[in-house]
Amino acid sequence: MNIDLSHGSGGKQTDELIHDIFIKNFDNETLNKLEDSAVLTVQGRIAYTTDSFVVTPMFFRGGNIGKLAVCGTVNDLSMMGARPRYLTCGFILETGADLDLLDQIAHTMKNTATEAGVEIVAGDTKVIEGDGNIFINTSGIGEILREDVSIHNCHPGDMILLNGNLGEHHAAIMSGRMGIENTISSDCAPLNSMVSDLIEHKIDIRCMRDVTRGGLATVLNELSESSDCRVDIRETSLPVSREVTGFCEILGLDPLYMANEGKMIAVVPKAQSDQALTVMRENKYGKNASIIGTVTEGRGVYMTTKLHGSRIIDIMYGEGLPRIC
Amino acid sequence: MNIDLSHGSGGKQTDELIHDIFIKNFDNETLNKLEDSAVLTVQGRIAYTTDSFVVTPMFFRGGNIGKLAVCGTVNDLSMMGARPRYLTCGFILETGADLDLLDQIAHTMKNTATEAGVEIVAGDTKVIEGDGNIFINTSGIGEILREDVSIHNCHPGDMILLNGNLGEHHAAIMSGRMGIENTISSDCAPLNSMVSDLIEHKIDIRCMRDVTRGGLATVLNELSESSDCRVDIRETSLPVSREVTGFCEILGLDPLYMANEGKMIAVVPKAQSDQALTVMRENKYGKNASIIGTVTEGRGVYMTTKLHGSRIIDIMYGEGLPRIC
Repeated sequence: MNIDLSHGSGGKQTDELIHDIFIKNFDNETLNKLEDSAVLTVQGRIAYTTDSFVVTPMFFRGGNIGKLAVCGTVNDLSMMGARPRYLTCGFILETGADLDLLDQIAHTMKNTATEAGVEIVAGDTKVIEGDGNIFINTSGIGEILREDVSIHNCHPGDMILLNGNLGEHHAAIMSGRMGIENTISSDCAPLNSMVSDLIEHKIDIRCMRDVTRGGLATVLNELSESSDCRVDIRETSLPVSREVTGFCEILGLDPLYMANEGKMIAVVPKAQSDQALTVMRENKYGKNASIIGTVTEGRGVYMTTKLHGSRIIDIMYGEGLPRIC
Repeated sequence: MNIDLSHGSGGKQTDELIHDIFIKNFDNETLNKLEDSAVLTVQGRIAYTTDSFVVTPMFFRGGNIGKLAVCGTVNDLSMMGARPRYLTCGFILETGADLDLLDQIAHTMKNTATEAGVEIVAGDTKVIEGDGNIFINTSGIGEILREDVSIHNCHPGDMILLNGNLGEHHAAIMSGRMGIENTISSDCAPLNSMVSDLIEHKIDIRCMRDVTRGGLATVLNELSESSDCRVDIRETSLPVSREVTGFCEILGLDPLYMANEGKMIAVVPKAQSDQALTVMRENKYGKNASIIGTVTEGRGVYMTTKLHGSRIIDIMYGEGLPRIC
């Protein structure tokens, strides 16, 4: 069965859609009440964020738009030193959207939410004319575990850690879109457990950022600008899988500008950088973690290349890959 | 200038869009930090909700999609007895969207947020291929002022109040879409001040609901089902303007099933119903408030018609008006 305009009317069909797909999959006491808002108890200060997802194709190796929608918001909360607690989700469905696919997406969202320890407590559905695309907005609330984790907070002498291989989400989406056969899988993952590991081990985290649209280059430039410092990275320290390296060579892509959905940087004091690296590597999403560079006095982002040259790493210009997330 | 895919890339163009439109208009300390999440302090229990907006046309008499996006979420929070505090907004922009229109929409959002006393503290922008449409998701957090305001909470003997004229948003959108010349204006409005007025006057509110998609008929059926009671309304008590009445007669529409964006019902004990009506009428959005019916033992929703007949009022079937909000 497919979505038609009546599913967005707010009447009987909307009601059936809510029960047959969303309540069935997300199933929790707060959501099931179907009030105008969820009523919740939170402890202490909160982190609050939103993200929309328009990725195409909606299903790709390593995940689907629903997994992305939960991970994206869980990760944005985690990066502020928060423990993610509650999500909302707003679906915009194009007419023709397949209800079985929507059911699969909702099922994946529930599983990912369960892994991340969050509940989907409120939602909304709208229908527009179209070709069966599904767009998802999530917002999220987390409880702050560590204050003062901020992109403005890095100091000369700090070390920059990355939790694993670059470019895998980007390469998986591109492969899916172009019909290229390979085994590259999106890295899409909830990073909250890695963040809570770092906090439990009393790492004095200056800043965390997930590395998504715009790639590592864009994140490092934001860091340099916001903390008024220079960033130096080493190309030889950047983890990139052999398969993605080959993919990039054939298509002329640069892993520094490719999108990821399960990657983060953490900036920590030099004295704790080895310990932080060990903590990251012990987490299932940090096996290939690496210390990729340092924060120093000055401005801009520089990379020492494999051939010992120095290259300025600028923010991404132009299109990147449209609808990557 | 128009939106193209590069505005969604996460690079330079996204950054310019964020600064030139969103930071410029929404401008507040939390948002301006551009962290991965806003970090906030909230008092006590919270209400939390989300809503997406796909209305067409985007500009209509009485408002635009941005006003709707702020009012919709402010009202959903208010209906739970909460004081709205913080909003997020996620924009999905189709290629070709006009940046001047986007700027006007953001400007309206800021003004409406200011009226409602809320701050837009986090946002996101994505771009999809299309014809210049703009879709907006908002989520919101409010602080609970009154517990136990719930659709499950109505009792036989309670009275049902409505804050004013039915059908104006629906008729305004339909007029805009069909090019009909009239002076009907959308009722789109933030209802949080009316709710806080009722709470300040110690009205023992059982339940509040905003009357949006699906119309009054759908809300009253939800009430009847959730509180396991019967609802009786009087057609002669339903406020409908002369112009909307005429519009409905010509086009065969029923105000009971028409969408509103600044209307709410409040269910209160009979002993306080006159006082509640006075409070509502003193608010700028309640001048035509009316006691429209009662809660009794039984099931279902019934209306005593102008001709003293009785009519069963069912939930809306079928399409309603697509993309009304």
